[in-house]
Amino acid sequence: MKICIAQQNYHIGNFEQNTHKMLCAIEEAKKQGADLILFSEMSVCGYPARDFVEFNDFINKCYESIETLKNAADNIGVLIGSPARNTNIKGKDLFNAAFFLYEQKIVAEIHKTLLPTYDVFDENRYFEPADEWKVVNFKGSKLAITICEDIWNLGDNPLYRICPMDKMMDQQPDILLNLSASPFDYTHDEDRKATIKANVIKYKKPLFYCNAVGSQTEIVFDGGSYVFDKDANLCGALPMFEDAMQTFECNDDGTINAPILESAARLPNKELNPKVLVPELNIDQVYKALVLGVSDYFTKMGFKKAIIGSSGGIDSAVTLAIACEALGKENVHAILMPSPYSTQHSIDDAVQLSKNLNNQYDIIPIKEVYESFLKTLKPIFKELPFSLAEENIQSRSRGNILMAIANKLGYILLNTSNKSELATGYGTLYGDMAGGLGVLGDCYKMQVYELARYINRNHEIIPQNIIDKEPSAELRPDQKDSDSLPDYAILDQVLYQYIEKRADPSAIKLLGFEESLVDRTLKMVNTNEYKRNQFCPIIRISPKAFGVGRRVPIVGKYLS
Amino acid sequence: MKICIAQQNYHIGNFEQNTHKMLCAIEEAKKQGADLILFSEMSVCGYPARDFVEFNDFINKCYESIETLKNAADNIGVLIGSPARNTNIKGKDLFNAAFFLYEQKIVAEIHKTLLPTYDVFDENRYFEPADEWKVVNFKGSKLAITICEDIWNLGDNPLYRICPMDKMMDQQPDILLNLSASPFDYTHDEDRKATIKANVIKYKKPLFYCNAVGSQTEIVFDGGSYVFDKDANLCGALPMFEDAMQTFECNDDGTINAPILESAARLPNKELNPKVLVPELNIDQVYKALVLGVSDYFTKMGFKKAIIGSSGGIDSAVTLAIACEALGKENVHAILMPSPYSTQHSIDDAVQLSKNLNNQYDIIPIKEVYESFLKTLKPIFKELPFSLAEENIQSRSRGNILMAIANKLGYILLNTSNKSELATGYGTLYGDMAGGLGVLGDCYKMQVYELARYINRNHEIIPQNIIDKEPSAELRPDQKDSDSLPDYAILDQVLYQYIEKRADPSAIKLLGFEESLVDRTLKMVNTNEYKRNQFCPIIRISPKAFGVGRRVPIVGKYLS
Repeated sequence: MKICIAQQNYHIGNFEQNTHKMLCAIEEAKKQGADLILFSEMSVCGYPARDFVEFNDFINKCYESIETLKNAADNIGVLIGSPARNTNIKGKDLFNAAFFLYEQKIVAEIHKTLLPTYDVFDENRYFEPADEWKVVNFKGSKLAITICEDIWNLGDNPLYRICPMDKMMDQQPDILLNLSASPFDYTHDEDRKATIKANVIKYKKPLFYCNAVGSQTEIVFDGGSYVFDKDANLCGALPMFEDAMQTFECNDDGTINAPILESAARLPNKELNPKVLVPELNIDQVYKALVLGVSDYFTKMGFKKAIIGSSGGIDSAVTLAIACEALGKENVHAILMPSPYSTQHSIDDAVQLSKNLNNQYDIIPIKEVYESFLKTLKPIFKELPFSLAEENIQSRSRGNILMAIANKLGYILLNTSNKSELATGYGTLYGDMAGGLGVLGDCYKMQVYELARYINRNHEIIPQNIIDKEPSAELRPDQKDSDSLPDYAILDQVLYQYIEKRADPSAIKLLGFEESLVDRTLKMVNTNEYKRNQFCPIIRISPKAFGVGRRVPIVGKYLS
Repeated sequence: MKICIAQQNYHIGNFEQNTHKMLCAIEEAKKQGADLILFSEMSVCGYPARDFVEFNDFINKCYESIETLKNAADNIGVLIGSPARNTNIKGKDLFNAAFFLYEQKIVAEIHKTLLPTYDVFDENRYFEPADEWKVVNFKGSKLAITICEDIWNLGDNPLYRICPMDKMMDQQPDILLNLSASPFDYTHDEDRKATIKANVIKYKKPLFYCNAVGSQTEIVFDGGSYVFDKDANLCGALPMFEDAMQTFECNDDGTINAPILESAARLPNKELNPKVLVPELNIDQVYKALVLGVSDYFTKMGFKKAIIGSSGGIDSAVTLAIACEALGKENVHAILMPSPYSTQHSIDDAVQLSKNLNNQYDIIPIKEVYESFLKTLKPIFKELPFSLAEENIQSRSRGNILMAIANKLGYILLNTSNKSELATGYGTLYGDMAGGLGVLGDCYKMQVYELARYINRNHEIIPQNIIDKEPSAELRPDQKDSDSLPDYAILDQVLYQYIEKRADPSAIKLLGFEESLVDRTLKMVNTNEYKRNQFCPIIRISPKAFGVGRRVPIVGKYLS
C-alpha cells in the first residue's frame, strides 16, 4: 500500500485556505499513485482552535470542509483531522476526531482517547475522550488510527489509564497511522522520535506519523513527520519547519520500500548531565523556530512590516537579525532612540548592525519628549529625587514613539525582551515590554548570546562589541544590569530550575546556589506575574514558556 | 448535631494567614458548642492556586497547614479543603480533596469527582477525579461529603457521567455537606440556590453548603453559604461578599433548629424573557462584587493607593466612585489630563465629580507632551495627515503620565475600559488600556450607566451631565463614539449574544439585528483579540468575561 504523508501549515479558522491546501495535496498524492493520504491532527480547522470550537457555526464550517474533501476522496483514502460532534447525550459536545474518507463517503470516524490538559494544552476543556477502538479495513489492510497523544502512553505514562493501541491489538492491525499536532520545543523532537519508535518496537508494525507544521501565535509546530518500518528502522523523515509531502510504499510484511535512514539499533541515548543546569540548545532548530514564529505570525495576521527599537544591546540585535531573516530586510525598520543616558558606542553599534543587515534605520532622540514629561509632571513630582519613575518615563517614551510610527506607517512592533528579564520583572510595562509578539521571550539571556553567535557563524552580522560589552539598560548614568540582577550565567540556571524543572527552593539551594540569591530570584519571579500577565504572546521554544502554558495566580502570596 | 459554617476569604499561598483564620474560626465554633465546623473548598491554600500546585514545596506547605489544623481538631470535627497527593502510580499527581479532622487525627480524606474544566476552571489540568465514595461516620451520624461541582450533576448534566451523591445513597447518609469555591456572576447565586435545593429535594436530607468568599485577582467568590433542611426549606443563608460564620443545630430527623427563611414551596421561577437580550443586572450585587474585587486586589497585593485618569466620561466616573468606596476616598487620586481636543464641560464635570467624592485630584494638561511627540516624530511623520496615530499618542501620553505618577508615588493605576470597548477594540494599547486591574471590563456600556444610576441612588455623586452627554473619546474635534461604533444600546445586545450566549452569526441576525451591523461587530470582536491579550485582569461579573475564561486564538481567521 502506498501511503502519502502531507505535513502542512494550516491557519486556524481559515477553512477555505486549509481545504484548498488539502485538496492540492490530494491531487498530488493521486499523481504519485498513493492509496492513502494522511494529514495532521485538526487539519480542517487548524490547531489549537481553542474556544472557537464552542461556536456551533465553527463546527458547521468544519463539516462543510469535510464534505468538500469527501468528494475529492474518490479512489484514494483520505485521513483528515477535525472536531466531530458527540451525538450521545452524555459527555462534552465534541470529539477530537479523524475522519477516514474513501469512495466519496465517510467510512470511519476515529476519536482521540488521551486528551492532553497540561502546559499549553486544554483538550479536556473541549473534548470527550473515545470509548471505542476499532481498526479500519482498507484495501485488504487493517489500519490502527490514533491521534497525537494517543501513542504517548505505552502503559507507563502515569497521566493515563488507557493505552489506545493496546485496545486495538487483538484486532490485529497491519499498519499504524497517527495524526499529530505536536509543538516544538528544544527537547521535543528527540522525545517524539523515541516515543514513535517505542510504539513500533512494542507493536511490531510499521507506523506513519504526520505532524502539523507552522506557528500559531506562540506555539510553533515543527513538522518532522516520521515513518518507521515494522522493525523500527526509520525509513522516512520529512523536513522540519516547512510544508512537505512524501509517498512511501508499505509492503504486506511491514517493510517499507525506502532507504533506511537510521537503523533500529541506534536508540536515542538520553542521558542528561546533571551538572549542565541549562540544557544546550539545538541552536539551528531554535533559530528556525523563531524565524518561522515571526514569519507565520505576520502572514497569518495579514501584516507585512515590522518595527524594532534598536538599542545597541544584544536582545534587540538578535531580534533584528531574526526579523530580517523572517520578513526580508526591506520589511524591517529599526528605530534608535538615544536618551541623555545612552552611550555613543551603543548608538554606533546599533547603526553598524543595521548597516550589516542592510535594513532601514532612523535615529529619533527622546530628549525632548523626556523633558516635556518631566516638565509636565513637575507639579506632582516637585523636588522628589530621580527614581525608577524617570527610568520608566524614558522606556515608555520609546514605547510610545515606536507605537506611533507603527500606527502611522502600518508596522507591527516586535518585542525584544528575553526570558531572564521577563522572569525577574526587569522591564517596563508599556515601555520595553510593548509589542505585538515576543521574539526572545522564551530565551534566557545566555541563550540570546548563543543565538547571536549562531547568527554570526559565517560572518559578522551582529557587531562583536554588542556581544562583548556588559549588558545595560542605559536609563541612568553608568547603569549595569548587574546592579539589579545576579550574574546572568548564575541567574539563568536558577530560573531554569524553577521555571522549566519546577524545582523546589530547597532543591535549588542543594544544587549549590547561594540561599539568598535563590530566595531573591524566586521572589522576583513570583511578584512580577502581574507584568507578564500583560505581555504579548511569546514564541515558545522551551518546554515551559511564559504565557498560556504557565498559569499562576497574580494575587498569590507564595515565595513572595 | 451542631454544625458551624465558616465562610472565609483566603489568600492564595498565604498559608500562615489562612491557617490563622481557620484556627480562630475553630476556637469560635468550639465556644458556640459546635460538633463540626465546615470550611470551603481549598481553604488551606486558597482557590484557584493554578500552577502553584505543581510545586512540591507548595503541596508540602498544604500538608503542614493540615498538620497544624489537625492539632486544633480535638473534640470538634473540622472539615477543610486542600490538594492531596495521589499515592497511586496512575493518574494525575493530585486530588482536589477535603480532609476530615477529629481527635487530632485525619479520619477521612474525600476526593472531588467532577472536575470543572470550562470557562475560568482548569481542574482537569491538575487533579485526578475520585474513584471511591464513602460516607463518614461521625458522632452517630453518617455524613456524605462532596466538593463544589460534585453536587452539580443530578443525573441530567451532560458534562458528567457520574453523580457522586448517587454513589453514596446506598450507604444511607444522614447529612450532606459540601465545600465550595463557586464564583460570582450576575446569574450564579440563583442557579446555585436552585441546584442545592434540587439536591435536597432529590435526596431528602439536610444540606450544609459552605462557599468561599473574597476576590482572587479577577474571580470574585461571593460567599452566600446556604443551609437547607431535609424538606428543602432554606434555614440558613450567610451574607454575600463578606466573611461570616454561623452554627446550626441539625436534628436526627433532618430538621434544623433555625427559622425557615424560604419555604420549599417557593421554587425559583427561572423564566427568561427572550425579548430582554441583555439581562437586567442585580445591580446591588454587581456593585458589591466590583467593590470587593478592587479592595481585595489591593489588600492581597499589599497596595494602598490608586490613581485613575478622570476624563469627565461615564467610565472613569463610575470607576472613581467604586475605588473611593473600596479603598477610601483618601486613597484615590484622580488625574485630569485635558488635551487640545478636550471640551471645557468634560473638565468641569470631572472636577465636580471629585468634589462630590471629596477625593484628591490634579489637572495635568498633555499639550506639551503631545506636541513634543509630534515634533520628535516629524522626521518620520513628515506631512502625513492627522490619523489614528495622533489620537493614540494623546491616549498613550496619558497612560505614560499616569504610570509615571503611580511609579513615583507608589500608586496602582486602575483601568476604566468597559466591556463594549474591549470587545470592539475601541481603545489604545498602553494608553487608556493601561492599568493593573480592569474594574469595568466585564460591564457593557449600558451596564456602566446602570451602575452610575445606582451610585446616584441616594444623592448625586456622578454629575448628571456625565450620565446625559453623548460618549466621546475627545481625541479629535467633535469626535463621538458613534462615529466608529454602532449605538451602544444595539451594540451591547449583539455583543451579549455573541460573547455570553455564543450565538452563531446567523442566529444573531435572526433576532432582528441588521446583517451588516452583526458582521461588522463580530469582526471587530475577533480581530481585536491581540489587544485584549495584553489587557490587565478584569473583575468578572458575567458568566463569560474576557480573560482566563475566554480563550480564543490570536492568529485565527474566523469571522474576521
